[in-house]
Amino acid sequence: MTITRRAPDDEDVAIDIKFAGICHSDIHTARNEWGRTTYPQVVGHEIAGVVNAVGKNVTKFKVGDHVGIGCMVNSCRQCANCVDGEEQYCTSGLVLTYNSTDPKDGTITQGGYSQYIVVDQAFVLSVPESIPLDKAAPLMCAGITLYSPLNHWKAGPGKRVGIIGFGGLGHMGVKLAKALGSEVTVFSQTNSKKELGLRFGADDYVATSEPDAFSKLGQRFDIIINTVSAKIPLDLYLSCLRRDGTLIQVGAPEDQLQISPSSLYAHRVGVHGSMIGGIAETQKMLDLCGEKQIFPEIETIPASYINEAYERVMKSDVKFRFVIDVSTM
Amino acid sequence: MTITRRAPDDEDVAIDIKFAGICHSDIHTARNEWGRTTYPQVVGHEIAGVVNAVGKNVTKFKVGDHVGIGCMVNSCRQCANCVDGEEQYCTSGLVLTYNSTDPKDGTITQGGYSQYIVVDQAFVLSVPESIPLDKAAPLMCAGITLYSPLNHWKAGPGKRVGIIGFGGLGHMGVKLAKALGSEVTVFSQTNSKKELGLRFGADDYVATSEPDAFSKLGQRFDIIINTVSAKIPLDLYLSCLRRDGTLIQVGAPEDQLQISPSSLYAHRVGVHGSMIGGIAETQKMLDLCGEKQIFPEIETIPASYINEAYERVMKSDVKFRFVIDVSTM
Repeated sequence: MTITRRAPDDEDVAIDIKFAGICHSDIHTARNEWGRTTYPQVVGHEIAGVVNAVGKNVTKFKVGDHVGIGCMVNSCRQCANCVDGEEQYCTSGLVLTYNSTDPKDGTITQGGYSQYIVVDQAFVLSVPESIPLDKAAPLMCAGITLYSPLNHWKAGPGKRVGIIGFGGLGHMGVKLAKALGSEVTVFSQTNSKKELGLRFGADDYVATSEPDAFSKLGQRFDIIINTVSAKIPLDLYLSCLRRDGTLIQVGAPEDQLQISPSSLYAHRVGVHGSMIGGIAETQKMLDLCGEKQIFPEIETIPASYINEAYERVMKSDVKFRFVIDVSTM
Repeated sequence: MTITRRAPDDEDVAIDIKFAGICHSDIHTARNEWGRTTYPQVVGHEIAGVVNAVGKNVTKFKVGDHVGIGCMVNSCRQCANCVDGEEQYCTSGLVLTYNSTDPKDGTITQGGYSQYIVVDQAFVLSVPESIPLDKAAPLMCAGITLYSPLNHWKAGPGKRVGIIGFGGLGHMGVKLAKALGSEVTVFSQTNSKKELGLRFGADDYVATSEPDAFSKLGQRFDIIINTVSAKIPLDLYLSCLRRDGTLIQVGAPEDQLQISPSSLYAHRVGVHGSMIGGIAETQKMLDLCGEKQIFPEIETIPASYINEAYERVMKSDVKFRFVIDVSTM
């Protein structure tokens, strides 16, 4: 299928896309499972590529630079959240990378499963040369989705972090929390991925289906990040938080969360949500990943494999992220 | 009924109780509605009185001092939470004012609906002379239950605070949040107490049963404290929080809280619990109330009226706290 991109304006960067990660949101949108897809629709918001042209006011990038695009391509830039560098919480005009209306030309934005994209320089990230471009792609959503709460809630030396779920998001959580200096525990249903968890840097790995999995932990954790979209017994995890600890929900389950009030007031713990991260924060993550060589585990696929990859994502049969090689389109 | 108190040890303060507030927890415990009451049981954890004797190591108090006792009379004093001055979250030995085992003599603690009590000096609060003793009593639970989250989440000038429910807890929340310099909004089902709300210092009063009550508020609040024990639509309140705002649950509903994940991640807001407050924090509150003349609204009753008062508490027919005049026992 052919889609068109606008001609770059003075602030735009034109990018040859090299790789695009597959995120579960892509599947929901492509299949209109959230009921708000405008077709034709090209999804993909884990984009890595190379600059092929820049508008005349573009100062941050030049032709040939390695760059990334994540889940958003514009925002109002004026609300308090944008001014604070938290564009992902823009209150009056967040433009998503796909399936949003682009204020620059009124078209519906189209994502990264494509060869070329034009994005305002303010929403283009610089990918350090030390990160292979295929591995850079999943950092743009899976990476920042975990990095942002770790950064915001100050994961680091002396902090104990728990990561619930060990898939595309969770494995990045383990690597990033470890890179920040935290002690990291994986919570996964079984021990089937234990060896991988420890290899990626986890200090402990808890198989939650085992009978005494929680009782022996005590109130250990400062931060627990839930990457699981299925319904899980949150009260059990809240009981593992230290006083003033926080459980952060980054998965998006369809059901409401069920929480016992006593789980919260017993140690003044809380449940927060977090959604991707700001542009400056995303750059900070990319620089960290470049410096510490923190990469996602990927399976690179040709475009012809996308439908099969979707089925495997639905079955959680992926270690740990599919990345489309756009040269195969 | 006659109960006995231990002879004061070297660290103890013996107190002639003058007034005792009636808290909903008293009713639950007196009626064994939580299933863990040990009879005989004298409840009451909003205690104000006068020192009548002190142990030889007591340095903080002397005979004749006005003092208060709240929900706890001892703790382990060694766990991280106790060391941090957050004794209410003691992980290994919180001793409640009633219906706990007293480590000093092995008896079951007995509360404030009585003429006399003996408490370790570390858990006795100094009541400023500028606070009438009858009005000091409800500060010991209702007051600190609201002050602690306001203090912990830094209510003050430039912060917008919402208080859900306008009863014994809620009216103290309004007065304390205002005293701290916040802008305060009451959320109550109807406008029936609006005039009182504004008189106590609220800047705004929202009748939540009105159709457009929430839609016109926008994302205004930094802190919302829920004092209501009934099930309420938390998602509506979460939608009124600014980015990084917090809803704090201080009521103890029997049902689980139901929260939509999107309510949390849309603006990185959170739901926390909070339970009374630490000893040093309680003293800070009493000093503030003395200085700024912040008092609860009370209806003082004789002991013979307790059963009727309980029925009126159950029907929320109280403005805003019953206080027993212990001289009528």
